[in-house]
Parts: sequence; C-alpha cells; structure tokens
Amino acid sequence: MTGEPGESRPLDLAALQRRLAEFAAARDWQPYHTPKNLVAALSVEASELVEIFQWLTPEESARVMDDAETAGRVTDEVADVLAYLLQLCEVLGIDPLAALDAKIDRNERRFPAP
Amino acid sequence: MTGEPGESRPLDLAALQRRLAEFAAARDWQPYHTPKNLVAALSVEASELVEIFQWLTPEESARVMDDAETAGRVTDEVADVLAYLLQLCEVLGIDPLAALDAKIDRNERRFPAP
Amino acid sequence: MTGEPGESRPLDLAALQRRLAEFAAARDWQPYHTPKNLVAALSVEASELVEIFQWLTPEESARVMDDAETAGRVTDEVADVLAYLLQLCEVLGIDPLAALDAKIDRNERRFPAP
Amino acid sequence: MTGEPGESRPLDLAALQRRLAEFAAARDWQPYHTPKNLVAALSVEASELVEIFQWLTPEESARVMDDAETAGRVTDEVADVLAYLLQLCEVLGIDPLAALDAKIDRNERRFPAP
Repeated sequence: MTGEPGESRPLDLAALQRRLAEFAAARDWQPYHTPKNLVAALSVEASELVEIFQWLTPEESARVMDDAETAGRVTDEVADVLAYLLQLCEVLGIDPLAALDAKIDRNERRFPAP
Repeated sequence: MTGEPGESRPLDLAALQRRLAEFAAARDWQPYHTPKNLVAALSVEASELVEIFQWLTPEESARVMDDAETAGRVTDEVADVLAYLLQLCEVLGIDPLAALDAKIDRNERRFPAP
Repeated sequence: MTGEPGESRPLDLAALQRRLAEFAAARDWQPYHTPKNLVAALSVEASELVEIFQWLTPEESARVMDDAETAGRVTDEVADVLAYLLQLCEVLGIDPLAALDAKIDRNERRFPAP
Repeated sequence: MTGEPGESRPLDLAALQRRLAEFAAARDWQPYHTPKNLVAALSVEASELVEIFQWLTPEESARVMDDAETAGRVTDEVADVLAYLLQLCEVLGIDPLAALDAKIDRNERRFPAP
C-alpha cells in the first residue's frame, strides 16, 4: 500500500504506475494482466469514453464538461484508460513518456509545419 | 515548435502535452480536435494495439517485446494512445494524473485488499 | 410498427433491417443516425462483447454459453452489433450480404487453400 | 470450397456462414477462432470503420459513398465486421437473426413509440 487516501503524494506517472502495480499485486490480479488482456481492457475503456459522446453533435461534445455528472463520467473513464495504459507499459517494460517523445519527433519530420 | 529533435527536454506529461498542443496548432488541426473526434481517434489507436495481440495465445502475448519489429509497433501504438488521451485532456481541461490518483483511491475503497 | 410481438415473421436480414428503420423513424431517431454516429455505436457494442471476454482464458471463453446469464448477455450484444451494422448499411445503401460474398471471393484468391 | 467465384449462389446469411466456416477449416484457422479472439477481431474491424469517419463532420460522413474509393473501403470493412460476427455466432451456436428479432421485441417494449 502507498499510504492513506488524501495523504500528500507526488503526482507523477511513475508513482501512479507503482500504486497500480501494488494494487494489482495485493489482490493477486497479476495472472489476469497478460498484455493481451490489458490491451483488451484498454480498448473497452476507450469505448466507454466513445459511448458518452456517440450521439452528441460536435458542438455538444465541446460542452461536455459543463454538466457535472457527465464531467465526472468522462474524468473517470480517462483515469481508466490511463490506468490500463500504465499497467500495460509496466508488464511490457515500455516507458510511455519516452515513447511519446520519440513519436512526436517522428511526426514533426513526417508532417512538417507549413 | 519546442526545439530541435534530440535536444534535451524534461520528460514529463505536462511538457509532452504542450508539445502536442503546439504541434496541432502549427498545422491548424484544432478544428478537427473536438472531444468527440479525439475519443474516436483514441479508441481507434487502442484497437490498433488489440490488432497486434488478437491471434496470440496469452503466452505469446507475454513475449511480444522479444521481437524487435513487434516491440517497435507496440511502443508506437502506446505513444498514439497516450497522445490522444493527453490531447483530449487538454481540450476538456482534465488533469489525467489527478483523475487517476482519485480513481485509485476509490478503487482501494471499492476492492479492499484481503 | 411491424406487428405484434410474437407474431410469425419471416426471419431474414431485409425484414429485420426494415423493422429497425421503422423503429427509428417512429421515435424520430434518424437525425442521430449519421454514418459517423452509427459506426461509433457499432464499435461501442463490439467492445461490450469484448468486455465479457476480457479476463477469460481461451478455454473459459469457449465455455461462455454454458452459463445461462452470460449466454444471454453475449446473445444480446451480438444483436446490438448486428442492429447497428444493418442500420449503417441502410443509411449508406450497402448490401451487407453482397459485400461479404465479394469479400470471401477476394479472400479465396488472396489466401489460396493449401 | 463452395464453388467457383462468380457462380450463382443463394445470398443468405446461413450460406455465407457456411462459406466462412469452410474457408477457415481449409486453412486450419479454427484453433485461432476462440470466441475471445473473434470478439477482439470483430472490435478491431469495427474500429477500422470508425477510422474512416473519425475526422469527418456529420455532413461529410453522410456523403461518404460519393467517393468511389472511400465507398469501397467502407463496404469492405462492413464485410469484415459481418464476417467475424457470423464466425462468432458459428462457434457459440447463436442464431444472429433470432437474437436481433428478440432484441427488437424487447426494445419495442422498453422504448414505446410516442
């Protein structure tokens, strides 16, 4: 465990990744956390985000945080996507920040700014 | 632009989020980046991860980083998922680290460790 | 409406597609049924199928119909996927059976049987 | 094999389902076709449909069949979704037409027409 809820914690990706790993280990969930299962769970959570937006117009989608209940659901699904992404990176040994940094570098070469 | 590729940069989520925002702004892509479109793109990238794993056994999925070419594809898709997640958070004003921290707190109450 | 529930109806795709179109029209849902929204809804329903299977081993997944409650959920999600696929075909003027027939022809040339 | 390409065939779901089963059997693909893998593949194909539409406005999405190349891609992805849905139904013993018929009955009770 990583301390009492509400206790001051440094909010960085690596610390959250550690909390997630300890959370899964304390519940013996690691056998379920194969890379194949984690990518499935990640895609399911991403679809739960899509579900919130599926019937909205583009304009309505831009105002989705104005409603407290919907804002809470969106924030919750964002957390779920990030949780599975970090757990996937943990089991595969991927550094997500380095991966994204390298990807932006590649995209800057691939799509030169006008 | 955020400097030359390869230049030393602090690797944190907020800095990457800024690079992504500047990247989109420099290409006039913001009109496409409605929350509705970004969640669709996020789910598409999550599915591209699933595609890599869809026919693998659980055991094969655990060895996916042993092959350099597949490891590169997985890392690239992880970066794409994180990129769209951060861009979604940017347009909606969500702090992804705070969202995940709060979610783990809730899950610790919901699923007490044995 | 297309008759009383339980009334004998010919069970073919075209008849079900008509029922779905009449169902949506009677509720003024057509404005929501843009192709973009229907493909999003289709992918959300496909993910709800994935959710049922995400933590199962391959062997457990093969026995999913042994449990009546799970069998009912799977059957229900299959119906939802087919419903959105048929509605998408309706608004786009695609014949799904002809599309699949042509696709199998192409796949037979692309992947010759040994 | 089910005959020469182009040969006149009755175009119904059951016949296409048989062609798909024979296609997979002739290539020894059945071991890969666990329900868990088939729902993953189904969701991946649904996301490939979403990818075509992800940056389009609702109005652009309604005109997607006007461009022959895009129309071909959409039709091809529709076929892929239907193919995996039918193969899933085959391995699970689900009748997709009966499932949808029952679902529309339930929805007519759940959402009474005004």
